[in-house]
Amino acid sequence: MGLFPDAEYLNRLTKTRQSMANKGIDVVILFDPANMNYLSGYDGWSFYVHQMLIVFADEEQPYWVGRAQDANGARHTTFLDADHIVPYPEDHIHSSERHPMDFAANFLKSKQCANKRIGVEKDAYYFTALSLERLKVGLPNAHFVDATLLVNYVRLIKSDLEIELMCKAGVIASKAMRTAFECVEVGARQCDVAAQIYQSQISGTEEFGGDYPSIVPLMPSGEKTSAPHITWSDDRYQPGETIIFELAGCVHRYHSPLARTVTLGEPDSKVSYLAEVVVEGLNTALATVKPGVTLEEVEQAWHNVIEKHGFEKESRLGYAMGLNYPPDWGEHTASIRKGDKTILVPNMTFHMIPGMWMDNYGVEISEAIRVTETGVEVFADVPRELHVKPHLTLRGE
Amino acid sequence: MGLFPDAEYLNRLTKTRQSMANKGIDVVILFDPANMNYLSGYDGWSFYVHQMLIVFADEEQPYWVGRAQDANGARHTTFLDADHIVPYPEDHIHSSERHPMDFAANFLKSKQCANKRIGVEKDAYYFTALSLERLKVGLPNAHFVDATLLVNYVRLIKSDLEIELMCKAGVIASKAMRTAFECVEVGARQCDVAAQIYQSQISGTEEFGGDYPSIVPLMPSGEKTSAPHITWSDDRYQPGETIIFELAGCVHRYHSPLARTVTLGEPDSKVSYLAEVVVEGLNTALATVKPGVTLEEVEQAWHNVIEKHGFEKESRLGYAMGLNYPPDWGEHTASIRKGDKTILVPNMTFHMIPGMWMDNYGVEISEAIRVTETGVEVFADVPRELHVKPHLTLRGE
Repeated sequence: MGLFPDAEYLNRLTKTRQSMANKGIDVVILFDPANMNYLSGYDGWSFYVHQMLIVFADEEQPYWVGRAQDANGARHTTFLDADHIVPYPEDHIHSSERHPMDFAANFLKSKQCANKRIGVEKDAYYFTALSLERLKVGLPNAHFVDATLLVNYVRLIKSDLEIELMCKAGVIASKAMRTAFECVEVGARQCDVAAQIYQSQISGTEEFGGDYPSIVPLMPSGEKTSAPHITWSDDRYQPGETIIFELAGCVHRYHSPLARTVTLGEPDSKVSYLAEVVVEGLNTALATVKPGVTLEEVEQAWHNVIEKHGFEKESRLGYAMGLNYPPDWGEHTASIRKGDKTILVPNMTFHMIPGMWMDNYGVEISEAIRVTETGVEVFADVPRELHVKPHLTLRGE
Repeated sequence: MGLFPDAEYLNRLTKTRQSMANKGIDVVILFDPANMNYLSGYDGWSFYVHQMLIVFADEEQPYWVGRAQDANGARHTTFLDADHIVPYPEDHIHSSERHPMDFAANFLKSKQCANKRIGVEKDAYYFTALSLERLKVGLPNAHFVDATLLVNYVRLIKSDLEIELMCKAGVIASKAMRTAFECVEVGARQCDVAAQIYQSQISGTEEFGGDYPSIVPLMPSGEKTSAPHITWSDDRYQPGETIIFELAGCVHRYHSPLARTVTLGEPDSKVSYLAEVVVEGLNTALATVKPGVTLEEVEQAWHNVIEKHGFEKESRLGYAMGLNYPPDWGEHTASIRKGDKTILVPNMTFHMIPGMWMDNYGVEISEAIRVTETGVEVFADVPRELHVKPHLTLRGE
């Protein structure tokens, strides 16, 4: 049984088949674990082996095709009928002789797809170059069409059930960030602060627990704040250090990410100035968000503010996000940047993350947001500012 | 600066180039984040965008090619000279117009590789089907050779520096498993137990902190013990339930995985019988491990024991492991199974995991091991048995 009522999955499948019809696709093979979950409910840490969901244009239920060992997991977590769970044998795992896509090609042949137009997610995580090669060998007369992001675009506008989970994820993100603020201090080990953040993310609240976010806590400090994707070490925090925390709450694979910047003691003036600019830019961009506006207009509002203060940002201001699996909570569809003419619609959700990474310092202060009927809703509840942590000297330093 | 002395990386690169020469490869493009780390020290959660390490047969240092935003991360974590860090512009991220592999193809052209034999990891995580297509478009006269696992096989035998980290990871794995034993109890929420496990994994010990393992704690319970890759929910544990914990300690990306099975109260007789068989089989297999023995001989020893007791196991008994990134700590090279004729050599490391998943129950009791000069060393220190957690009734139940 899936997490949501069957009708939710069937509705998503209907939209997916409409999109397939628009592209003339007879059958689509989905490797992206988020897309597999989205259309079937499938949930498990099994994307480290080849697995897929296959959606036929002319059948209501998709097929889960995966490792034999994981078929019970598919039975427990999907809404699919038993005959729609198709395991391949264990001797296909990490074998130089047998490849799971040979099995998949045979399955597709048995479903009369040898000459069909087959959609594949050519640029999706876990759909390797060899996977496509083996499919082509097994189905030499099929026509392969790129279906990268086909389902991701169906995911762009969330249902109310999805928004409910993202609100809960926002509560957990806020809690985890407050934990970071509490635990980070001069002399504390980075790993111990990371451990407390995890504790907070996973235990969640008394009402609902947390799922694992698709990205681990990112927490560069000192000069490494110039590098956004650094994790932690067992070094101890130093007086005056700046630390960026980028983390998420996650509930049933739905995310609400959040970034804040902390200084241990009074901030360097260049850090506090940059933080003020970032907050002003973020507030200005948030104020533009409402149905009918384009993403590039939102970015322009941000851009005008930072330009006025003499800053530039080459990277985008944010991206669509929601349901996902490692290594990313982003959806890879709409981005808040110049040239993206996506028009905002209620229940689109984004991580607006004006990260500024300079040569040897950086600032991130972000919000996860939902487009409402009239404007914007922010999922988290943490002051939108540089957090200055006073340096206590109680231990006779 | 990399984690290890430069000489360690240069030695690994020499072995890699020997392997390239054996396959007639002029240049190899590595997408596997573990291989990137192994040969350069690069460490960051940036594998959710296209990035690679490029090793030329005739140059000592490889080139890191990745997102502009991550170049500072490469400067902080690799031993590479500044001119060996080659960022591609931010407008290549999640763009339908510009693909990072077009940039990579141009870089290779600038290095006179248009007609060369180029190795690519065709079945590696994150090397998508489109990545190879774009490379072929950009380099129509190059000859592409499959180099999947080329570096993974270099990783098979660990250096003493690597073993040192895996021993530390074993200490953390033991600590995390003891935390699981302490926290799991009737009425506890699964998410709260998961949170405590994380706390233990990441804070590590007083002497060294923990890194994030490549796989989250897997902890199926009840009937879901028949499905190995289930994580947790916020359900509460029930009296008599069986829970499988599979987790790892991780230090600087080096893992030591460990699985144990717990029952809340006296176990069902079929669970305790299966656990006895698994322990007998595991002990027998461990006793065969020493240099000169093949992996299929180790598996045969296990197989003989369980067959005697009327059990079968289709899936392999274990796999090589060590340095890695999500989604897997396994190395995808040698497997402990029938047909694998890999001969054991000192400092090979494996996760020997005799998981038995039946229709509606399962047992996992595993060890992470190193092949020594004369036999085997086990990284963790947790009793090799079914852990029975007495059901306390102190609260007036």
